[in-house]
Amino acid sequence: PYQRQIYDFFLPPSLREDLQKKSEAARQVLASQPGVQLPSLQQYHSLVPLDTKLRNSTSSFGLSSWVWKATSRKNGNIYCLRRIEGIRLTNEEAIKAVNSWKKIIHPNIVTTVEAFTTREFNDSSLIFVHNYHPLSKTLAEHHFPVGNNRFGRPAPVPEKVLWGYLVQLSSALKAIHKAKLAARCIDINKVILTDKNHIRLGACSILDVLHFDTHRPVEDLQQEDFFHLGRLILSIAANTPLRNNADLRFPLDQLDRTYSPELKERITWLLSPPPAIAVKTADQLVYDLASHVDDMFVAVSNAQDETLNHLGRELENGRLVRLMAKLGTINERPEFDGDPNWSETDQRYTLKLFRDYVFHQVDAQGNPVLDLGHIISCLNKLDAGVEEKIYLTSRDHQSALIVSYKELKKQVNAAFGDLLKAGNKQQASRGY
Amino acid sequence: PYQRQIYDFFLPPSLREDLQKKSEAARQVLASQPGVQLPSLQQYHSLVPLDTKLRNSTSSFGLSSWVWKATSRKNGNIYCLRRIEGIRLTNEEAIKAVNSWKKIIHPNIVTTVEAFTTREFNDSSLIFVHNYHPLSKTLAEHHFPVGNNRFGRPAPVPEKVLWGYLVQLSSALKAIHKAKLAARCIDINKVILTDKNHIRLGACSILDVLHFDTHRPVEDLQQEDFFHLGRLILSIAANTPLRNNADLRFPLDQLDRTYSPELKERITWLLSPPPAIAVKTADQLVYDLASHVDDMFVAVSNAQDETLNHLGRELENGRLVRLMAKLGTINERPEFDGDPNWSETDQRYTLKLFRDYVFHQVDAQGNPVLDLGHIISCLNKLDAGVEEKIYLTSRDHQSALIVSYKELKKQVNAAFGDLLKAGNKQQASRGY
Ligand SMILES: Nc1ncnc2c1ncn2[C@@H]1O[C@H](COP(=O)(O)OP(=O)(O)OP(=O)(O)O)[C@@H](O)[C@H]1O
Ligand SMILES: Nc1ncnc2c1ncn2[C@@H]1O[C@H](COP(=O)(O)OP(=O)(O)OP(=O)(O)O)[C@@H](O)[C@H]1O
Ligand SMILES: [Mg+2]
Ligand SMILES: [Mg+2]
Repeated sequence: PYQRQIYDFFLPPSLREDLQKKSEAARQVLASQPGVQLPSLQQYHSLVPLDTKLRNSTSSFGLSSWVWKATSRKNGNIYCLRRIEGIRLTNEEAIKAVNSWKKIIHPNIVTTVEAFTTREFNDSSLIFVHNYHPLSKTLAEHHFPVGNNRFGRPAPVPEKVLWGYLVQLSSALKAIHKAKLAARCIDINKVILTDKNHIRLGACSILDVLHFDTHRPVEDLQQEDFFHLGRLILSIAANTPLRNNADLRFPLDQLDRTYSPELKERITWLLSPPPAIAVKTADQLVYDLASHVDDMFVAVSNAQDETLNHLGRELENGRLVRLMAKLGTINERPEFDGDPNWSETDQRYTLKLFRDYVFHQVDAQGNPVLDLGHIISCLNKLDAGVEEKIYLTSRDHQSALIVSYKELKKQVNAAFGDLLKAGNKQQASRGY
Repeated sequence: PYQRQIYDFFLPPSLREDLQKKSEAARQVLASQPGVQLPSLQQYHSLVPLDTKLRNSTSSFGLSSWVWKATSRKNGNIYCLRRIEGIRLTNEEAIKAVNSWKKIIHPNIVTTVEAFTTREFNDSSLIFVHNYHPLSKTLAEHHFPVGNNRFGRPAPVPEKVLWGYLVQLSSALKAIHKAKLAARCIDINKVILTDKNHIRLGACSILDVLHFDTHRPVEDLQQEDFFHLGRLILSIAANTPLRNNADLRFPLDQLDRTYSPELKERITWLLSPPPAIAVKTADQLVYDLASHVDDMFVAVSNAQDETLNHLGRELENGRLVRLMAKLGTINERPEFDGDPNWSETDQRYTLKLFRDYVFHQVDAQGNPVLDLGHIISCLNKLDAGVEEKIYLTSRDHQSALIVSYKELKKQVNAAFGDLLKAGNKQQASRGY
């Protein structure tokens, strides 16, 4: 059971469904509404809002912000755009603060793409472009959904999940601090859940630009990152969002009721003010978490194994798509329709009978049999060109022939080759 | 560049090709040769040898061994079978030693399935069944390929790869020792490379059964695991297989030339004899490696991100396979062949014209156009049921109609529904 837990840690029960929903969410566009028209922002068009809060109150940055997905005209990719409203940068250099962030590629950090100012909203706004992760939720949205407290306290978050968050954000901090940056956005509203138990720091670089003039030493900001990380984990463990000046002693004391002393110790370390512990480092944090980092390594490796297995199976479908497309182009071409020269030994005739054998099976009573397994298995055998022989009968049951998949494969290739010869050489066989 | 390295660590340049080769290797069967006939062993049939060494000399276990892949009659899965020749177990309990191993599921350990004795080879042999990992190589085969020394010394193995091996095997040891077992098979011949930079301990449980009567304390064997791990990493770093009683001081001293002091320190710790360090534990090892465990966590998480992206794209193919199978079952069914009641407004007629539109495009000169992109794009639109309208003409160009993909989708579903009604209810629509 322990092993199984670790195995399932990063994969949703129905991976297929999850991926399909995400691809739909990514493709989804807004039905055009008269009067409502979002502008294009530089190369980014077709904006779709991602905000879930109804009223756009002042956000984590002290200013109103909006979040959209948008498509890039340059590469067709989808990005996440965040507009910070009504901000006029006094320093030209400020916006260059994103440059160091662009280089940070880490599985637990949403990649920063670029930032620019815009007047498209008839004010002076800043736009931050980040990678887009379809259907993500903030940790706040996930763990503290609105209107949920009517049903009493929810079950506590499993300790395994908390260790998972801690390991992922510590790994992110390690990469960020190594690059001489500070995260500044470790907050239940700014960390997003992008896959099952997989979280990412979602708003990096923004405060670096907004507070460019404040010139706080990065070392101080890094120390604050540890505190914010402690508060974030404590919030989720205590099942209450803990605000800036909340008293953390009470929730910390309550931890023993549900969680191990080790977890409490880690959180206490993160929250302890600078005098207590000289200087905290992300390396030290990762070291203290080593055993849990290993657990996460095992969990994600297992997920990766499983995903590669799925992918292997799905690649087979790619093969079958190409094969069915080939068969489709060969069979029933109007050029040969009712052509009396077709003899029963012509290869295309055999392929026609084969097509009936694959797709038009009937049972003893002559009723259609619709069995996808039969179709897939026949196509796989055809693709492999196995020696197995099958018995094909003509529609009028007057003639029959026995043929191996190996011969059929040759015939498909020959018939397709004939079409290629007849076809436009220039674009011949595009993509097959 | 560092980031990119980490990104590519676990994924081969062409993932598609790699997976296809593996699936071919898994499916590959032996052409039957007269006189050469491998037996079935219990539920395992269709044995195919995996041994690469020509002469089957005495193996790592002190006895001749053979390795095959074989298919299970029970579930159709493929397993890796290893026969240990000429061994008569004196103790009935010995074979039960595999039971504890069956529970060890870890990304860096080949899962043990079962073990049994057989007389199929006219002797008393032991068969160990493990999970099968297509196209894997032992570390010896990978790093010390035979006949390679003609071309001078190869480039040293990148330090990153060595840390990767160390982290993976330490993680495996941690899981094994926690289960009160010892690996006993940390050897360049028994660790296999199953994916790019991904290794697994390949022969667990075997020595537990073979040497069941020796009754060596598991604690001693665990301490030996550390030594064997150190020797394995040193072998690859020094680019020479180091045998049992090899003097390790020289290769250890040479390490500084190519590798960091930290790596040397880890290897030295692993190799140091018991008096020098009280008792080694896998937990301690993982702590000391913390920073590298984190690197591996990042690397495999990135690989997982990329693989999930691929999978998302490939799932689209699965949809298309089902859709083409549907169209295949509807079009040209003999039941309706030449049926004069088919009016031009009948939905099946429309679908026939659509089929021509998708698969039988011709250019202005009437030559076939073979464009997979056109086929895929039409099928995707059909599957989505978009509003886009297309212009379909009959084969004799006498009639034409304009229809949207949305309507076409309805018609496909209706026609398929008719077939379902006509079909055998029991097995109706299997798999669609
Ligand atoms: N990179 C991203 N890709 C996809 N969705 C994102 C991304 N970043 C944020 N989101 C989603 O956009 C929505 C709004 O994000 P936002 O950061 O504004 O959260 P919020 O709860 O409104 O916080 P605030 O009060 O600071 O505005 C959230 O549901 C979040 O999951
Ligand atoms: N679980 C497995 N799945 C797939 N292939 C495997 C598996 N285990 C081993 N192999 C492959 O089978 C081949 C033979 O393995 P074996 O362990 O006998 O290696 P060897 O070099 O012959 O060592 P020895 O001298 O001990 O026999 C190797 O190429 C190895 O990669
Ligand atoms: Mg918001
Ligand atoms: Mg061998």
